[in-house]
Parts: sequence; C-alpha cells; structure tokens
Amino acid sequence: MQLSYSDILGLEQRFRTNLINCLSGFKTPHLIGTKSKSGITNLGLFTQVMHVGAKPPLMGVLFRPHSVPRHTLENILETKEYTINLVNKEMMEQAHWTSARWEKSEFEATGLTAQYSNDFSAPFVEESKIKIGLEFKEQLLIQANKTILVIGQIKTLIIEDGLLSKDGHLNIEAANTLAMIGLDSYHDTNTIGRLAYAKPDLPPKRLD
Amino acid sequence: MQLSYSDILGLEQRFRTNLINCLSGFKTPHLIGTKSKSGITNLGLFTQVMHVGAKPPLMGVLFRPHSVPRHTLENILETKEYTINLVNKEMMEQAHWTSARWEKSEFEATGLTAQYSNDFSAPFVEESKIKIGLEFKEQLLIQANKTILVIGQIKTLIIEDGLLSKDGHLNIEAANTLAMIGLDSYHDTNTIGRLAYAKPDLPPKRLD
Repeated sequence: MQLSYSDILGLEQRFRTNLINCLSGFKTPHLIGTKSKSGITNLGLFTQVMHVGAKPPLMGVLFRPHSVPRHTLENILETKEYTINLVNKEMMEQAHWTSARWEKSEFEATGLTAQYSNDFSAPFVEESKIKIGLEFKEQLLIQANKTILVIGQIKTLIIEDGLLSKDGHLNIEAANTLAMIGLDSYHDTNTIGRLAYAKPDLPPKRLD
Repeated sequence: MQLSYSDILGLEQRFRTNLINCLSGFKTPHLIGTKSKSGITNLGLFTQVMHVGAKPPLMGVLFRPHSVPRHTLENILETKEYTINLVNKEMMEQAHWTSARWEKSEFEATGLTAQYSNDFSAPFVEESKIKIGLEFKEQLLIQANKTILVIGQIKTLIIEDGLLSKDGHLNIEAANTLAMIGLDSYHDTNTIGRLAYAKPDLPPKRLD
C-alpha cells in the first residue's frame, strides 16, 4: 500500500500518531533520572535517545514540545545533571508505569529504586544494568514543531559485570535490554551476528 | 564496574567508540536513498534515525561530522528529497556493505534495487518492506562536536501489505526488521506484548 501526504494528513489522529512513531524502527526505552533543586526526584521514560559522539562522549535525547509537565527537562536545565538508565525485561512494567501522570516521585510510585553514586546528585535506577551519568551541554530547538534536542556529556558509567567485550562492544542483549516499536510494543532480541567493517572487495563477513 | 570520566577518556580509541555507540540501545538500520543533481544515485546506512513528530509527520537523522565523503547529506541539501528504507533480515549483508567506500553507486555495487515512485526523484530500495519519502525541512548543528541533525517531512509511505494494525501500529517485526547494537551487531526480535496507556491507579496491563 502507498500513502500520499494528503492520505497521511487525513488519517485519524491516534492512528497517525501510532504509525509515524513506528517508522524510526526499534529503539530501547531509557529511564531518565533527575532531582529538582528542592530535592524531589523524577523518573521519565524516553525512547528517542541517540549516540552523538564518542570523543567527547555525547548523547542526545529528544523532548516533545507539549508533553504536559516537563519535570525531566526542567530539572536538567536547573541542575545540569541527569542519568540515563537502559530498561531491561525484569523492570518493563514499572518503567512503562512511570509515564502515568504521578503527583509524587515516580520512584516512590512505581517501586523502582533510586541509587546514588559519588558526588552525582541525580538518581540512577538500581534495577537497570547499564547506567549513564551525564552533564547538560546544550539544547537545540527544532523549528518545524518546537521539539527540543538535549545534548549531554557522559561523566560516568555503571555497567553490570560480564557485559563488556574485549573490543568495547557492550552486550546489552545479555542484560535483557528491551527493544520497542512505537509507543507501547515491547520486544526481546536474539543475536544474528556481528559483521566485519565493510570493504568494497568482499561482502561483509560474520565476526562471531 | 564503574568508569569515571577520566577512565572513559583513557580508553583505547576503538574500544571507546564501540562502547559509547552501544549506550543508546537497540536501533534499526535504515538505508537513505538520494540522487545527485547530476543523476548519480547514492545509498547510505544510518542508525541514528528518530521520530520527531506526527503532525506534521517529521523524522530526524544524525550525520557524523567528519564521515569522509558525505554524499547523502550533500544530495539532500542539493535536491531536498530523500528516502528512508527500513532494513530487514533478508537484505542485511547488502545493507551493511553499502558502508564500504564505493566509487560507484551503492545500488550498483551491492545489488540492491532502486525503485521509483510517482514524481519522487530520490530512489527507494525495492528490497525494503517499509519505505518513506521525505522532503528536507531544516538542519541543526550540535556545537559540542559539529554533528548535524537533519529534519525531514514525510511526503509518502510505501508499506508492504499486512503490516499495519487497525489502530495504526506498524508491525515492523513481521517485516523481519533488524535491530542493531553499536556499529556491527545485528539482532532479530520476539514480541513480548503491548502495554496499555499508563495510568496511576493500576500497573500497566497487556493489550494483546
């Protein structure tokens, strides 16, 4: 089937939101932990998390324009610190539940555990097996719909033992890290294999 | 294990690149198809593809700062048109192979097939089951490392029959769409389930 631009605009709103959200493919849900200046912790579920660079180590997160109270973004801008915690299968329901409209801290509400490390003020999520502490660097405004891209520099990594390969590849699958489609569909994964760095002379070989 | 900022900076370069690339979690490889003004087609493999908005329908792609010849970005800026094609398991090796440094068009080099639709000048990839035609809207420069975020508006969708649910959810898993970790690790997926919209009164229920 083919949909034209006017077909897409004519779709029922919820239908279109679901469809367009699926086109970016599989992504991993990440919980972002923050703490306000007044000391209230917050935990938010984000899927638009991206690799921006390795030197310096940078990650990006997209924030929707009108997503009602934006405690996560406000706390990041106020304190400059936040954590990104990969979501695994064992914590799937609790992670999804953080996206309800809670009056209290999502840690208290969902039962996920705040974990603190060294002099980092933002809370990590104890149940996560791959935890990243970041410092805010810059924000960019996408003019087309007022979405905000936040760039942070990685300051610390907390990784469960046994996941890191000799060449630096991190086996997030062995940590039961989830993959998502769209807004609500959760998936686990199987390794097909790693492919060698591509060169013109031969089709890519399996590394494993 | 915990790595501090100085630990991370002290890692061997290739090791650090692999590790940092894995932290954004699973993502789907996408092939971007373009054609230069002089008529030469190009196909590039990108994993940092994101959902930006549904109304208007917008997607973003991150372009690394120094990735040698950037034909894809140059063609997009020159012609304002490009296609994003989700990569499935059957075309995995060919898609990975497009990232070698080809002198000729990656279509010709890898054997993937250029497909044209209506008055869209940029080539789609026939072997893909989910194909998106886009028009360039804006580019943003990330100051921290000169990465470029390109925003495009979706103009047309070509989707294999049987993948679209009644509520608009697109079953990219049924299309054998791949998930990737880092630079070279390919995975397929199994559905765990869909979770209902989160509300405070009850933990999220399974939809399926």
